Amino acid sequence: MLAEDYMDLALRLAKSVDGQTSPNPPVGAVVVKDGRIIGMGAHLKAGTAHAEVHALEMAGDEAMGSDLYVTLEPCSHFGKTPPCADLVVEKGIKKVWIATTDPNPLVAGKGIEKMRKAGIEVEVGIGGQEAKNLYNVFFHYIQTKTPYVTIKTAITADGKTATFTGSSKWITSEQARLDVHKLRHQNDAILVGINTILKDNPLLTTRLPQGGKNPIRIVLDTHLRIPEDVHVVADSSVKTIIVCGKNASNEKEALLQNRNNLTIMRQNTETIHIPTLLEELGQLGMMTLFVEGGAEVNASFLKEQAFQKLIVYTAPKLVGGKTSPGPFGGEGMELMESALPLQFTNVEMIGPDIKITAILKKGT
Amino acid sequence: MLAEDYMDLALRLAKSVDGQTSPNPPVGAVVVKDGRIIGMGAHLKAGTAHAEVHALEMAGDEAMGSDLYVTLEPCSHFGKTPPCADLVVEKGIKKVWIATTDPNPLVAGKGIEKMRKAGIEVEVGIGGQEAKNLYNVFFHYIQTKTPYVTIKTAITADGKTATFTGSSKWITSEQARLDVHKLRHQNDAILVGINTILKDNPLLTTRLPQGGKNPIRIVLDTHLRIPEDVHVVADSSVKTIIVCGKNASNEKEALLQNRNNLTIMRQNTETIHIPTLLEELGQLGMMTLFVEGGAEVNASFLKEQAFQKLIVYTAPKLVGGKTSPGPFGGEGMELMESALPLQFTNVEMIGPDIKITAILKKGT
Repeated sequence: MLAEDYMDLALRLAKSVDGQTSPNPPVGAVVVKDGRIIGMGAHLKAGTAHAEVHALEMAGDEAMGSDLYVTLEPCSHFGKTPPCADLVVEKGIKKVWIATTDPNPLVAGKGIEKMRKAGIEVEVGIGGQEAKNLYNVFFHYIQTKTPYVTIKTAITADGKTATFTGSSKWITSEQARLDVHKLRHQNDAILVGINTILKDNPLLTTRLPQGGKNPIRIVLDTHLRIPEDVHVVADSSVKTIIVCGKNASNEKEALLQNRNNLTIMRQNTETIHIPTLLEELGQLGMMTLFVEGGAEVNASFLKEQAFQKLIVYTAPKLVGGKTSPGPFGGEGMELMESALPLQFTNVEMIGPDIKITAILKKGT
Repeated sequence: MLAEDYMDLALRLAKSVDGQTSPNPPVGAVVVKDGRIIGMGAHLKAGTAHAEVHALEMAGDEAMGSDLYVTLEPCSHFGKTPPCADLVVEKGIKKVWIATTDPNPLVAGKGIEKMRKAGIEVEVGIGGQEAKNLYNVFFHYIQTKTPYVTIKTAITADGKTATFTGSSKWITSEQARLDVHKLRHQNDAILVGINTILKDNPLLTTRLPQGGKNPIRIVLDTHLRIPEDVHVVADSSVKTIIVCGKNASNEKEALLQNRNNLTIMRQNTETIHIPTLLEELGQLGMMTLFVEGGAEVNASFLKEQAFQKLIVYTAPKLVGGKTSPGPFGGEGMELMESALPLQFTNVEMIGPDIKITAILKKGT
């Protein structure tokens, strides 16, 4: 086997827990000795053992003299668990392969330094783009203290989210809609606008055959128009945050505050300011935000360039229509040359539909 | 090697001449003996030698006892050239592998029958979907006597063809625009609406580094509003057909008729009827039509379901805007469930852009 094969496995393990480790990053680890895998593990949940601990535990006494493959630099500080770098030294690991260093200033090279000082060979960087993609969410959060924002939309092959009459059910296939539930599972919070609540009364929960984690529900509702009997208010099994402007009714706020598991987040501006909201969500420990908003919510995020990723499900159908709406409303850019530049990072078929993933182009 | 490998090569040869054989289909042939390729060829131009003739000529005396791989059933009738099935028999071919039978009633199984009667083993069907895709254009023409219509459009990631001010240059990359010129080369005719002529004054020629075939230019211009100094009128190096309604000015028609290489096609209806136009183009021997129309032209083809393929170039950028136009205008469908169903057949990156190919879903 090649080192890349073992790191591939470690990355696979890390990806499998993506979404269930927040606010920690997903990490995978594999222990190899004499060409045999003798341990493997992943970090399962914040506050519990790190990936290296699980993998080295599985290896037991055999760990002495082995190679450790880990997707992120082992930590060197006491957090909720003791430093993994110390454990690696203690277990007598011969060589550590690291996919990517940890930009967290508490770690940032210190784990590597500690291990090298103890005479362990350390090689950093295998895992390449795949590892970077896995951690861009985590790195974004560490560096900006705001959640990594993904906007999701579903359009026809001619770029429409509904017909001219507003008919929109369903654009994409059941398979694509299932894929969206996986994304809900992988995000800490989900955000929609009040218009979506009024029109569709969605539950905004994660509904997957084998279960999944529900994201915190966030509704942008400047004037607190939200009815009390909609799902996101009536169902208290999942936390809901309603964001409003400074002029929203105090009475309505008081009524809603009585609800279990519901918080009102009032901004001190008339309209909702997205960057301020993202800062507040970051402070609440939300690393990832999934925007399933309608055209106007999407337009607000576009205007502020307040997102990192765009996922477009394109369905194999045409509706046409000069006034049929598209995924981004507002006024939009004046000139094509001032369009917001993206970079496509993935295209795949999901059942009969196409899933396109794009990120903001570097340097913009 | 496997039979599939030789047929792959034959298909590759056929594809290389796609667009330069009209009204004949592109065909490739490979001759194999004792595991060695001893001949290969393609049909280069209508009226000249068929693929089998070229390949067997290269094989020379060695052809005796060899296997022939050919992408389409060898012809059995005297057209502009003698029947290939006779040549195959005469050359002493042992076995013929055919990717797909020819639906042309002049051939349709008769070539196979003739060869089998002469004691040649014939196997039909290897080449699968790839061969079917290659010939769907040809089969469509043979069966309907109308051109195979491909609609091409270019949109932003949010489905827009321009900003709200009409700014649209450029949506896609140079690589994608180059790809469009390859499609022009592969089509017999290119069609736009008068609005595109008035707005962009395009040449509608094929401009490729190593040259290409120009399609016949077709302009939909109900009222003959076309100015005489636009490129498609002034440049007589390529044929232009202007289609108008019954009420268009006779004077303007007379003026335009004076131009070299320009034809007026007047319909006897007030507005232009697309199915009638396609029948007329089919009678003129046009097998393929490439629609680079604007939103209203595309809407006309959508309304009549008068196309077979849709190619969407999607650029990695966002413009947003409630009134920014999309690729299909008109009124559009009333309900999402009555959207025209397509089937995605290919997705690929062209430089930074995504090229999506879809066909009308079978049975619609």
